[in-house]
Order: sequence, then structure tokens, then C-alpha cells
Amino acid sequence: MGKETAGPLKLLRETHEQRVIAALRTQGALTRAQLAEQTRLSRATLSVIIQSLLARQAVTESFPDETDGPVVRGRGRPVSRLTLNAAGGLALGLDLGHRRIQVTIANVAHEIVASDSVPCAERTPWPRRVKLALDLVDELTSRHELSLGTLAGVGVGMVGPVPTGRNLVLSGRPAEVRDAVSERFGVPVQLDNNTRLAALAEALWGAGAGFGSALYLRLSYGVGGGLVLGGRLLAGATGAAGELGHISVDRDGPECPCGGRGCLERYVALATLLERCGNLLEAQSPQAHDLLTEAGTRIGEVLAAACNTLNPEVVIIGGELADTGDHLLDPLNATLRRYTHAQVHKNLKVTRAALGADAAARGGIALVLTSPN
Amino acid sequence: MGKETAGPLKLLRETHEQRVIAALRTQGALTRAQLAEQTRLSRATLSVIIQSLLARQAVTESFPDETDGPVVRGRGRPVSRLTLNAAGGLALGLDLGHRRIQVTIANVAHEIVASDSVPCAERTPWPRRVKLALDLVDELTSRHELSLGTLAGVGVGMVGPVPTGRNLVLSGRPAEVRDAVSERFGVPVQLDNNTRLAALAEALWGAGAGFGSALYLRLSYGVGGGLVLGGRLLAGATGAAGELGHISVDRDGPECPCGGRGCLERYVALATLLERCGNLLEAQSPQAHDLLTEAGTRIGEVLAAACNTLNPEVVIIGGELADTGDHLLDPLNATLRRYTHAQVHKNLKVTRAALGADAAARGGIALVLTSPN
Repeated sequence: MGKETAGPLKLLRETHEQRVIAALRTQGALTRAQLAEQTRLSRATLSVIIQSLLARQAVTESFPDETDGPVVRGRGRPVSRLTLNAAGGLALGLDLGHRRIQVTIANVAHEIVASDSVPCAERTPWPRRVKLALDLVDELTSRHELSLGTLAGVGVGMVGPVPTGRNLVLSGRPAEVRDAVSERFGVPVQLDNNTRLAALAEALWGAGAGFGSALYLRLSYGVGGGLVLGGRLLAGATGAAGELGHISVDRDGPECPCGGRGCLERYVALATLLERCGNLLEAQSPQAHDLLTEAGTRIGEVLAAACNTLNPEVVIIGGELADTGDHLLDPLNATLRRYTHAQVHKNLKVTRAALGADAAARGGIALVLTSPN
Repeated sequence: MGKETAGPLKLLRETHEQRVIAALRTQGALTRAQLAEQTRLSRATLSVIIQSLLARQAVTESFPDETDGPVVRGRGRPVSRLTLNAAGGLALGLDLGHRRIQVTIANVAHEIVASDSVPCAERTPWPRRVKLALDLVDELTSRHELSLGTLAGVGVGMVGPVPTGRNLVLSGRPAEVRDAVSERFGVPVQLDNNTRLAALAEALWGAGAGFGSALYLRLSYGVGGGLVLGGRLLAGATGAAGELGHISVDRDGPECPCGGRGCLERYVALATLLERCGNLLEAQSPQAHDLLTEAGTRIGEVLAAACNTLNPEVVIIGGELADTGDHLLDPLNATLRRYTHAQVHKNLKVTRAALGADAAARGGIALVLTSPN
């Protein structure tokens, strides 16, 4: 909702227009019918707003290519889709990962216009990581002849906890990273944990597209997760919602640096599993099969507890370990169903992540595109 | 937000006014400063709206009694609180419980104007339960000389699963109950599981008041729960979110009728515990102490998994078993902290429920008062 700075008539139109723009920013391309449903505006009001947006070239309309299949509705008019004008603004996503710096740039029409990554060492200091990312942004804008004059905002993913609770004042490393990025571009900068940003991108545009609630679990050198409810990341009281890697699977297990005990991460982190079986990711040997069964079972137990708590529509499994496919997912699924309420598991979809290594950077872009203006 | 039926000027004022009314409906009494924060309206706009609401007697203003303590602000003006006019409408909450039918009536100023209950047998058929509730409504309105002419809506709590997912069409018993109540009063009727409604009331008006997210666990003859995020119940995909009683605490435990295995409810349901120790609720004997320690530990394990998933601000423990106090809560707390991430437990408050036996009926009232009009 806008502030009351303009006259009421102008404000009203802007408020309705903002609903339309917000829906297109979040969803990408939408038909008029989808827009009407999402904005809850009448067809008549919506029609006036769309005409105005089209006339100002803020929105573009496209008709599907006939080779895409039948495009004619009952009454003979082809169904067009509306998107924000690709020239209307850019969103920048940075992922400052453990071993990789990823930069992805998209326009408000949800088209990725540039994306690349550079490796970095695990011990790379934070100012150096930020510099690597900013240099890569320069390189990409130059290579693709992009101007960042219409940059709407930056979303940054970081490893480790990033507090995101209510009324929070950032300090320490997250504050330093935000300040460095903000100073460089002069636009709003939002930060979150990069696994949570991957969860957001998967839920909006990947394996969770179209679902109302998604639980994402990333199985890699670390084990983390994120919850997306109604298109928004759940932060929790201190930004630790979705820390599925620290749910205990062994009440007599070893203490974990997190403060817990017998945490899932201690048993199924990739390095631990690879130590026990070097060819694990090929999943061909009986030893690899047994180890993946054991890991899938433990992961299924944790997901069962999380699903009984949340009752999500879809569970998305990402990270390198998910690439072992059914060797992991079959025991995971069987265990998940064994320990959940029938109402929880009967309509639950469990699926592998659909996005690639740029998922967290795309999540940063999603933060920009879904934040209220 | 209103539909576009009126002219834009009128609509704009109504939209802002609706924000003010919605805040007062949900929160009860608020100062002007609290209203400004919650509605994000400017002081000037808010002032115009409040004047109009006061002039129409839709809202009343009260100044604190001087015996309540200092009431004078820096600039010498006492701080008043605004509430909706108690005569402005009523909300009715019904709780069709296992052994009790509870009826509670509140006005939009959040004052309870009538409340009572009648016992019923566990096997009482549903049409009979509904009749008992409607007869009690008649009895209460007659006793307190209330007119239901201004009834805004009814919220009904039921035992067992009540599907509440998106775009759901109710069928079976919940549909029959809704139709019977709706036919009687001719106003909107909302249904939910009564444990979830108790969670909503506790989060808004009980032990969770002022917190942004609450996890509620009810320990009684059954074990259930509910999650309240930002003042709203989380339903989940099929209305099963918060089914903490069916999180497994023993992977080799017995099958549960729910479809899971080794469910918490099998170990800590009140009837099971009372079978093992008849004087459990007095908690004086060493046997009772040991049993409560064992139960508290199991419950703590389940809450640890749920809290690592959600990272709530407060955990609220209700039901008869919670009346044993520290005998249960000490081992529960120790276990919860032992198996959670430090970021999850360091600011977590664990507390007993504050509301009484009418909590679920008050949750029904909360459904009415917090639903968008």
C-alpha cells in the first residue's frame, strides 16, 4: 500500500496498479484470468489498469506461438500472457558460497539476462568474496552490455546464519556485506542464508512452482533447509527456521557445535559419507547402496517430524546427495510415509530440486522481486 | 480490501477505515500510537478516521483509571485506548468437545458477555452435540438478555481432523455441522479442530499474546497442537499442520491408527499415563515423578524437532498434564534445549497455557474477529 502523498483518486488507481505489478513481478507471465484471481480486482478495473500499463509500455503482451499447441479459447480469442516490460528494471542475485561465488542478473519479466560463477577457496575472507562478486558483476554487465541504471535491488545469499527476524538490526559480517554491496549499487540490499534462498527459488520457480507450501532440504557438505509458505520464506524468531540438519536422529549421539546432540548433519553430510564410501555418488556398489539406504532412512525420519509439524504440499530434495536419485529417495520416501499421519502423507509430493547451481542467486532475485515496494 | 462497488473516494476512505477496524477487532484495545504502527497509516489520516468512527459511535475511547499508575505522557496528555463499540456486534464461539460442549459469546470490543458449558458423553452423536450447543446459546442469550441481531459470525471447534486447506469444499461431518449452525443463525460459520482453535486463542489472548509466532501443544486424553504465525493459524496442505502427537518417538514402536508408528500420543496420552500411575496428577509419589520425567523427556524430543523446523518465539503447553507444572516442564525444557540449535533455544520462551476450558470456544471467536470482511 502506498503512503498518502497523492490525492485520493490517483492513490486508489496506484494501489490497484501496484497489486497488478506486484503479481507480475512475483509470478512472471500471467493471463488476464490469472491476474484477476490473484489481485482480486474486477475484470473491468483490471482492464483499465492493463490498458494504461500497456500504453505506458510498463507491461508487454505476448500471444503463444501456434506451435505450442492449441491457443484458441471457446470464443475464438487466443489467450495472451502479460509480463512486465523486460526493459523496466533489473534484479541482481549474489551467492557468496563456500566454494563458489555466483552472480545472476534477471529483468522484471523474469528473464535471466546474465549468469556466471567463479570458484573460491573455503578460507577466502569475506571482503575478498564480496570483491570477487562485484568484479564478476562488472565483467557480466560489460560482456552483455547491460546498464545497472534500472537496478531495483540486490539479494545476497551467504553461508551460515543470517538473522532475519522481525525488527532486526544486522551486525557483524552480514552488516558488513550488506554495506559493501549497498555502497556499490545505491539500491536496497537484502540478505539471507543461501540455502534458504535456494529454497525460495525452488518453491517459486523450480520443483515447487504452483504449490502453496514447500519444505526444502539441501543435502551437501552441510545439511540445511528452508520453508516457503504462500510464496514467502519463513524466517522464524531468529532466522533459524528450517534448520533440518540439526534435528536429532540419535538421542545418545555426539554433541554438535550447534548446541544440539546427534544432529542429522553429523550422519549424512557429504564429506562424512564419502569418507565411508568413496564411490558413493556413483551408487553402484553394494556398499554405496547400503550407505544411501541408511542415509535415506535417517533423512526420512527427520522429514517425517518436520512434515507432521508443517503438513506441506511438497518436499524438495536438493544438493549433490540428491543426484543419487532413487538409491536415496526410495528409502527416504518409505521412511517418511512410515512415520507420518495419513493426512500428512496421502497428498504429499516428494521431488528432487529442479534448479541448478544458481538456485541461491535466483533466490536473491526472488527476494528483490517479491519484496513490497 | 473492499470490492469496487462505490466511488473511488468513498472506497479509499473505507479501505483505510477497514484497516483500523480490522486492527481493533483482532487486538481489542489499542492506543493511537499502536494503531498507527499496525495500520501503517499516517497520524493525520488516522486522526480523521478515528474522529469519524467516534462520531458514529462505532468506536469508544477510554482513559485509564488514575489508580492504574502514571497516565500522563511527557507532554501532559493522558494516553487513551480505543476499542470497537461493545454494542457494535457479537461473535459466537462453540466448542463441540469429547466430553463437554462450550458456548462463549464476546462482543467486538473483546469483552466476554456470556459463557457456559454442559457435559456430554463421549459417544453423543453429532446432531445431538449441535443441538446441545444451540440450546445452550438460547439459554445464555435469554439469561443475559442478549440479542443475536448483531451477530457477525460463528466459529466452531470440533474434535478430529477438520480439513482447512486452500480452495477446500467441506464434506461429511464438518459440512453437516456447518450447515446446521449456519441455518440457525444465518451468518458465516467457520470450523476448525478445537485444539487448533485453543492454539489460536492462546497465541492471541493467552500465553502467546505479543509474540509473533507460537507453537501450542495440548497434553490431555489426546495429544494435539497448533501453529500460529503472525496471528493466523497455519492449516497446512490438508489441515493437519501441528499434529505433534503423531511425531514418532520410537522408530520400532507400535503402529498407530493415524498411519504412523511409535507416535508420541501412544506414550503420553493421559489415559495411558493414569493407567500406569493413578495419582499422577498429584505428582507427589516417586512413581509419579519418574513417569512425568519420562513423559516430559519424550515430549521435549518432539518439541525439539518441531522447534528446529519452525524456530518459534514461544512454546505453550496446555491440557491437564500441564497442570503437573515443573514435574513435567523441567525435564521437558532440559530435553528441548539439549536437542535444539542454540539459535533456536537461546531466546525461546516455554510457558504453560493461560486460558481455561473455554480456550477453544474463544478460538472460534478469534476466527470470526480475525477473518477479513
